[in-house]
Parts: sequence; C-alpha cells; structure tokens
Amino acid sequence: MTLTLVGLGLGAVEDITLRGWKAIQNADAVLLEIYTSALIDSSLQDLESFIGKSIEQADRISVEECADKILEEARVKNVVLLVAGDPLSATTHCDLCLRAENAGVNVEVIHNASIINAIGRTGMQLYRFGEVVSIPFFETNWSPDSFYDKIVKNMEANLHTLCLLDIKVRERSIENLMHNRMIFEPPRYMSVNIAIDQIFQIDDMKHRIPSNTRAIGVARLGSKTAKIAAGTLKELKEIDFGEPLHSMVICAPQLHDIEEEKFKHYGI
Amino acid sequence: MTLTLVGLGLGAVEDITLRGWKAIQNADAVLLEIYTSALIDSSLQDLESFIGKSIEQADRISVEECADKILEEARVKNVVLLVAGDPLSATTHCDLCLRAENAGVNVEVIHNASIINAIGRTGMQLYRFGEVVSIPFFETNWSPDSFYDKIVKNMEANLHTLCLLDIKVRERSIENLMHNRMIFEPPRYMSVNIAIDQIFQIDDMKHRIPSNTRAIGVARLGSKTAKIAAGTLKELKEIDFGEPLHSMVICAPQLHDIEEEKFKHYGI
Repeated sequence: MTLTLVGLGLGAVEDITLRGWKAIQNADAVLLEIYTSALIDSSLQDLESFIGKSIEQADRISVEECADKILEEARVKNVVLLVAGDPLSATTHCDLCLRAENAGVNVEVIHNASIINAIGRTGMQLYRFGEVVSIPFFETNWSPDSFYDKIVKNMEANLHTLCLLDIKVRERSIENLMHNRMIFEPPRYMSVNIAIDQIFQIDDMKHRIPSNTRAIGVARLGSKTAKIAAGTLKELKEIDFGEPLHSMVICAPQLHDIEEEKFKHYGI
Repeated sequence: MTLTLVGLGLGAVEDITLRGWKAIQNADAVLLEIYTSALIDSSLQDLESFIGKSIEQADRISVEECADKILEEARVKNVVLLVAGDPLSATTHCDLCLRAENAGVNVEVIHNASIINAIGRTGMQLYRFGEVVSIPFFETNWSPDSFYDKIVKNMEANLHTLCLLDIKVRERSIENLMHNRMIFEPPRYMSVNIAIDQIFQIDDMKHRIPSNTRAIGVARLGSKTAKIAAGTLKELKEIDFGEPLHSMVICAPQLHDIEEEKFKHYGI
C-alpha cells in the first residue's frame, strides 16, 4: 500500500502523465490538494469524470494538521494525492513525504511540469534565474519585504527572478482562528497588478527597483487561455491579465539575444 | 500543420503526458532530440514500439544547423520533436521555437518534468536554489571555471546550486570538424566523480569550496534505478553512482530542518 503524490502539470486533465494516470487507476482513495496551487483549465468535476473516481479536496488543515490520517490510510490503501504542477515544488509536500518515510509508509512521487520550469516559455533562459521569490499579500501592519531584497540581489547579479504570487484558499481570519471557527475567507489569488503595486510600495522607501525595470507577466501558463505580456513594471501594472493563476518574471538588466527577441515578441 | 515540442519527462516512456501522447498520434513525423539530454529507462526501440511509429534521431547538427529543414517540413506536416525532460530547459529549443515563430510556422510546446524541478526529490527546497550551473568536461588547455565562481556566490548567499553535468553525444573532434568529416566521438556523460574532481582542480587555486562542503549526488533521477546519496564532496567523490545521467546539488551552508532530515536520510 502506497502514498503516491501525482503532479497534474499546468493546464487541463490531459496534462497528467501516463504513469500518474495508472497510479490513479490503482488508487483506493484520491485527494486533490487545493491550497498551494490550482487547476486552470479543469474543474474538480472535469477531473472526476475524466478519471472515473470521486475526489476529496484537501486543504492546508487536512494535509498539514491531519497528515497522520492520510498516512494511516496509506498503510492499508493506495492513496493518491493530486497536486497541480509538480508535487515537490511546495515545502508542505516534501514534509509529508518525510513524515511518511519516517512512519514507514511507502511513498512514490510522480513528477510533472511546474511553473519553475515552464516559465522557460517566456523565452528567459532557465539557467539565468536566481533565487525564486514568493510575494505575499500585504495585510494591515504586515508588509514583509524580503522578496524585494532578493529581486535586487538577482538584478545585481544580472539574473532573472521568478515571482510566485500569493494564493489564499480556505484561510481563516485571525478572529475565526482564535475562536476555532471553521469559517473560511473567500479565495484570493494575487494578480500581476497587485504584485507590482506592492513592489512599488516598498520601492517608495528603498529606491532599488525603478518603474522602468523590464518584466514579463504570465497568466494561466500552460492553459489554452495563457497570456504572456512583456514591458516595464509601470506598463504591466495597467494590463489586465484576467483570471488566476498569475506569476511574473523580473528580467535581468541585460538580456541575451534570444531573450531580447522573445521579450519583443511578447511586448505590449 | 504544426511543430510540437513534446517533453518526455525523466524516466520511462510512460512519463509522457496524455497531451503529448495525443500530439504523437497526430504526427506525420517524429524526431527525438539526443544531444541535450537522454532517456534513462527506455531505449529508442521501446519508445518506437510504445508509440507505434518510427522515430528519427536528431543530433545537434540536425536541430541547429538544419533547423530550416525541420521548419519547412512543419509547414506541410505535423512534426513532433521529442525531448527528454522539459522541451524549453535547453536554449537550443527556445531558439528553434523563435525561428519557427519568425518563419510563421505554428509551434506548440508540451511541458513535462525536468531536472530543474524534479531535483526537489533530494529534499532541498526549490525556492532555495540560486543560479543553475553547467559543468563542462575539461579539455587539454581548456578548463573554464565560471561555474566554480557561481557555486561560491550561491554558497555565500546560503543557496543551493544545481550542477548540470556535461553530455557529449555525436560530437566531432576538432580535427574531424576542420576536415568536415562526419566521424563522431563515442558519447560521454560526466559522472558526479569527475564533476567533483574538476571542482577540486579549480579549488587548488581558488580555495573557496572546501572538500567537506556538503553535496548530494543524483543519478538517473525519476527512473527505477535512481540513486541519491548525500555527503561531503570528498565522500561523494568515491561513490559509484552507476550509469548516466548524473547531476549534483552543492548544498547551501545552512540547511532548514526538513532539508537537514532529508540530507541524513540520503546520507552515505
């Protein structure tokens, strides 16, 4: 009996690998992780009818706080945890694998494309990316700015920065958390526009990322409705990228020839 | 009519996505790129019998120098170019896409897992990797050492480094190149051991990467015979990782808790 983490890739149900498909066919229980990423071109119902099995949605609480329940189940059943993108791109799933190994539960991982490599679609070369940053939603009295410094550092080293934008699904307000009420906030997905606005907010104090810095906004990468637009931060801030998920590349100050051509190709 | 670049993922034929499989079924011609990466668990024959079509092997010359031939073919036929891993992880395929776009040829890209994201398997967190480096085979009078400086820079920023190790397939000696003779050297794939030896050669002059630096050697990632071993560079240099493909992570000086546990898990 095995816990198998299956990457779904980036867009629709058919982005699953044949190996992943087989694992699902052999599964006694199928969970879909919904809090680190999201399916773009397919709904839960699409996925269920495609695989011919019912799927239980797993939020942060079920995967992190109730991991033991998943592991106990995987001792006696084949349990598949579906994850949009690649299963090991998020720390939380690495942690789950580690717990499973420590508990003597068989674990398998079936990899797939994720934003980390598919961002090559922008034309920016993968070997020219520095550290990835995550941009979190600013809250009242909480505007963490470590991502800003990392972008600056990458720019100084003439490297691109992949910015992953915040996802808040089935999160509880502090008040509801304190009262242990299972009341969830509506899902929020950060847009390219908000990400740039937050960068500018920090830039008002730090003055290291000028508004004419070149960047590439990316929406729904890998899906039929994917949108890629290149321009300055100031320009991209005004572009409507549509539905989630969004991400962004802050370009290295100097682009190589192919990168320069691709930048123009996606230019707004 | 379309040129479709299909990522094969990391291990065996069943790592292809359903979308990739469909593209192959609709293809009039199928090429397999053999010079930036390689299939691990499957031979060309396995792949041919699996997809039920014959496959033409494409080396650097056919893809780079004879790109126009591929593009001309894609005007009148559905041409699929299969690439181990993800199709856009190598510059050469980005270049091919760009040429196709400029020539008005339809291009589609079907992503898959690549070493760039599957390296998460080591337990090292993807968001803690700095710039990727490629370690080339040293030749007589040619020992480029820019990769060494990049590793040092990542270490100073407390980031991991993914080291991609050189692959030489259907390369010609300088003499044969000069005489335009189509005589190819036997394929060479750099092992973890050679990579470490080359790092040590540079370290004899630069003294920035001590032999007790922690690293993780990875062989045949994603395949049935995958091997992951963690230790100091000095220790890993003596480990036999077996058949290609190999790669290596030079760890950040400080590991997080989960990383530390995974390092121990793979410890030699």
